[in-house]
Amino acid sequence: MLRTTTCGALTLQNLGENVTLCGWMQNSRDLGGMTFIDIRDRYGITQLVFNMNDNADLCQAARNLGREFVIKVSGVVVERSNKNKEIPTGDIEIKVEALEILNKAKLPPFLIEDKTDGGDDLRMKYRYLDLRRNPIRNNMILRHKMAQATRRYLDGLDFIEVETPVLIKSTPEGARDFVVPSRMNAGEFYALPQSPQTFKQLLMVSGFDRYFQIVKCFRDEDLRADRQPEFTQIDCEMSFIEQEDILHTFEGLIRTLFKEVRNYDLPTVPRMQYADAMRWYGSDKPDTRFEMKFVEMNEVVKGKDFAVFDNAELVIAINAKGCAHYTRKQLDELTDFIKRPQIGATGLIYMRHNEDGSLKSSVDKFYNEEELQKWSAACQTEPGDLVLVMAGVKDKVRKQLSELRLEMGTRLGLRNKDTFAALWVLDFPLLEWDEETERYHAMHHPFTSPKPEDIAMLDTAPGEVRANAYDMVVNGTEIGGGSIRIYDRDLQALMFKHLGFSPEEAQKQFGFLMDAFEFGAPPHGGIAFGFDRLCSIFAGLDSIRDVIAFPKNNSGRDIMIDSPSTIDEKQLKELKIKSDL
Amino acid sequence: MLRTTTCGALTLQNLGENVTLCGWMQNSRDLGGMTFIDIRDRYGITQLVFNMNDNADLCQAARNLGREFVIKVSGVVVERSNKNKEIPTGDIEIKVEALEILNKAKLPPFLIEDKTDGGDDLRMKYRYLDLRRNPIRNNMILRHKMAQATRRYLDGLDFIEVETPVLIKSTPEGARDFVVPSRMNAGEFYALPQSPQTFKQLLMVSGFDRYFQIVKCFRDEDLRADRQPEFTQIDCEMSFIEQEDILHTFEGLIRTLFKEVRNYDLPTVPRMQYADAMRWYGSDKPDTRFEMKFVEMNEVVKGKDFAVFDNAELVIAINAKGCAHYTRKQLDELTDFIKRPQIGATGLIYMRHNEDGSLKSSVDKFYNEEELQKWSAACQTEPGDLVLVMAGVKDKVRKQLSELRLEMGTRLGLRNKDTFAALWVLDFPLLEWDEETERYHAMHHPFTSPKPEDIAMLDTAPGEVRANAYDMVVNGTEIGGGSIRIYDRDLQALMFKHLGFSPEEAQKQFGFLMDAFEFGAPPHGGIAFGFDRLCSIFAGLDSIRDVIAFPKNNSGRDIMIDSPSTIDEKQLKELKIKSDL
Repeated sequence: MLRTTTCGALTLQNLGENVTLCGWMQNSRDLGGMTFIDIRDRYGITQLVFNMNDNADLCQAARNLGREFVIKVSGVVVERSNKNKEIPTGDIEIKVEALEILNKAKLPPFLIEDKTDGGDDLRMKYRYLDLRRNPIRNNMILRHKMAQATRRYLDGLDFIEVETPVLIKSTPEGARDFVVPSRMNAGEFYALPQSPQTFKQLLMVSGFDRYFQIVKCFRDEDLRADRQPEFTQIDCEMSFIEQEDILHTFEGLIRTLFKEVRNYDLPTVPRMQYADAMRWYGSDKPDTRFEMKFVEMNEVVKGKDFAVFDNAELVIAINAKGCAHYTRKQLDELTDFIKRPQIGATGLIYMRHNEDGSLKSSVDKFYNEEELQKWSAACQTEPGDLVLVMAGVKDKVRKQLSELRLEMGTRLGLRNKDTFAALWVLDFPLLEWDEETERYHAMHHPFTSPKPEDIAMLDTAPGEVRANAYDMVVNGTEIGGGSIRIYDRDLQALMFKHLGFSPEEAQKQFGFLMDAFEFGAPPHGGIAFGFDRLCSIFAGLDSIRDVIAFPKNNSGRDIMIDSPSTIDEKQLKELKIKSDL
Repeated sequence: MLRTTTCGALTLQNLGENVTLCGWMQNSRDLGGMTFIDIRDRYGITQLVFNMNDNADLCQAARNLGREFVIKVSGVVVERSNKNKEIPTGDIEIKVEALEILNKAKLPPFLIEDKTDGGDDLRMKYRYLDLRRNPIRNNMILRHKMAQATRRYLDGLDFIEVETPVLIKSTPEGARDFVVPSRMNAGEFYALPQSPQTFKQLLMVSGFDRYFQIVKCFRDEDLRADRQPEFTQIDCEMSFIEQEDILHTFEGLIRTLFKEVRNYDLPTVPRMQYADAMRWYGSDKPDTRFEMKFVEMNEVVKGKDFAVFDNAELVIAINAKGCAHYTRKQLDELTDFIKRPQIGATGLIYMRHNEDGSLKSSVDKFYNEEELQKWSAACQTEPGDLVLVMAGVKDKVRKQLSELRLEMGTRLGLRNKDTFAALWVLDFPLLEWDEETERYHAMHHPFTSPKPEDIAMLDTAPGEVRANAYDMVVNGTEIGGGSIRIYDRDLQALMFKHLGFSPEEAQKQFGFLMDAFEFGAPPHGGIAFGFDRLCSIFAGLDSIRDVIAFPKNNSGRDIMIDSPSTIDEKQLKELKIKSDL
């Protein structure tokens, strides 16, 4: 080793020791005849001291160091007169006796500080410098700890980590595949996996019983904010289980991660039916850090000649506790918020429950005090509360009010990033209607088992069939989801039929799996967690980008290495493909 | 859980317990009024017993079960009269009270037994059935243990596992890349990484200090036996270290793996110069389970009018201990062995040191007893030994004798798969001449640091320059290799120049790395182990295929899922590429 210890290790315990440190020049301060330098490595920062009186040449050399120079220093650990209680090494400094420049550094294009002056593009281009900053490096260390703790937990429960292939087969169902032209089989392509779904099911057929993998997956989708073309899953599958076993096992995983990585005691995870989540929160991933449940108001408000309500399929309200004092301006802001094109609502009705007990609504023309008392009762308001009401087509208005509920939660400070509320959402619909293709799509994926009691409805009311599918939600973000799988060839074939596959298509694309079901497939099910998302929630970040060492931008580019890029004609020739621009 | 315990858990401790097991019907024996069934899962095998007298219907149902049916049984644990000492559950059996068929099974196309009757192609097509067999499943469990133990060891030394991107940039240096057409950046391509080399070096520039990753890598090469287009590496890098630190750290890893996974005490790993390995074993990956070192015979044999030796650049011999009794036929076999086109030698000379002390060679015409005494002395023969001599151009004859040495080691039973001999090979040449392209190529890769004392020779004798590069060899197989890296922009540019890059090409392909070196790059180095190979050695296998859950065949095909395959015209259109067949 070039060093005897790191920049984060020395304390008063080490006084008088001769040490050698390596690291980066963080900053430098000249005070009279002294020069103080902070040397930084992954482990911390240590103060170095140079004295003109002791060794003018050495001190001068130190003064010539630039920011981010890589240096090696040897000296004695001495007590600091001016202690820094903020850092573990703040009681000591190194009286330097030898200084070596291991590598010079040009001035970085942005400050290597917790709060940097670098914009997003600059930070992405020089990602290797951005990764030097504490917040980003700490995210990577957090991610490492999450991965190790996940493996320890699952290994302890006899799960086996099995690597599934990355070069697999393209299947049109689901999102768009990235494909890889095969040189040895010209005209043919591999695809990169969107998930190891079929392989983990085959491992169950193989009797592996408990499988997991922390694995890269790929989706060639237009990148909405905070999506990456490559992402990482904690992928798991179990045999001879029922849904309850999956919920129990993976609730255990998440609670263990919270305890081990954040020292946070996550309570037992509550469960909610999908239908209830939609009714109470207008979302299949409700943020349950706060209540503010929807109140269905049809019975209360209809029939009073207010056309907006009378004509609406659904009228719903939330009670914004303590917001009766909202000004006209604030209420207008909320109206503007829900009228934004992303939300697309047309209007917002409110009722104030004033501190003096009086009730005052924006539709007093139609609802007198007595009627408003009914509103108050339905919404369980107290003096000081504000009721916000929206009306419209059921599915739409629920989504709209969900957005408003989240906005109110934010405004009321109810969405603290250091508080965590987890939730199981259960009994998702099996299928959802797709307007564009005019057919049902699998809501989860085609391998999800319908609830046995609902199978009969596949022909009569496919949209009503519930699946043995479940999501885990934390703070309003879906962090994982899974299902009990089909393990019977005939039922799987029936599913493909309902998804619009011809028997030939089904056999061509998924024949290997259906064939496997005929050779003794056990009952099985599983779950996959979005590892990037999980890490970002643990790190208190809104974006997954800063829990990924080398992320791509919204055009799928890595601007640091300038990829994707053109390739040699020779490569195209060997692959027997050509551009069709 | 559908079961209360597994098929590998029950012993006499559990007598009288009511249990429920799930698993596969391994086999069935009817004995008089009794039926015995072995039920199998990942954890073991348990005997089930059914009795016609107790419950004829149940017994009949058991008799109707086919091989590999998936069943669930409940019953009482009873002591076996006829105990099986071979298996942990051999003292007990289950007196079955309820039997449920969870899934039927067609007769598998080959036997699910330790020794199967399935050929390679059939086993690959039904890989999910092959994975049911103990030997294959045990390989996967071994691999899991290797991965977990690797992570524990490195995590314990403050290494951080960082995921590097899979969609990166194509670079023509090295092997052929798999490429991925970009839809969002039409006409451009990502490449799949042959290794995360540049990214791990950037992580060092970022100050990560100690990085590792168990990571998939990709190479589009014509598949020689036992190569896979996707393979797995244990990839590592450290900063502020010297070669000695790398050797120490990763020798520790390998010894820990041997201890934890195989309970094998691997001794301290000896070290050998590359030049010595070539001289003594004719190979940079010598199998050191046995000695049989080359003896250089030029001084001993030249000048006796035997043209074969006189005209040869190098005459070398090995002493095959105890093989003096080899018959003419056996010696002819050895001659045929070295004349095979893969080896391409022209002839083999031998000398017997007979049990009676006499010396007898195949070239007695040129070498009398007195001369042969010199051979004997040089090769340190004893009565009973056989000296095998080859002559030719230095590099070629060394390779040829290396093959013969390995063959003799095999014939003499010196290459036991349960014995392990590890070796560090050090100081590899930096460059090797490539006949085809008529230029020097990096023997390791372009980022390897030359030995500082050899840099001056880069211009005068590039082939003589040694690198700070090292390989670890176990039982004659390279399991890992690495180097101390260049961390200075100018030296890196010089290397690219010597590898035939124009400054523009170097900047276009590796500019991001050379730029990074200007912002404070620390001294660093690393190593990568071939994880598939390492697992195969631990498993005592010659091939890596059976330590990979879903391998591809020699044409790069996964014949189970039938991949690669053609893709939709729509996909090609979206990617703006077309076939050029």
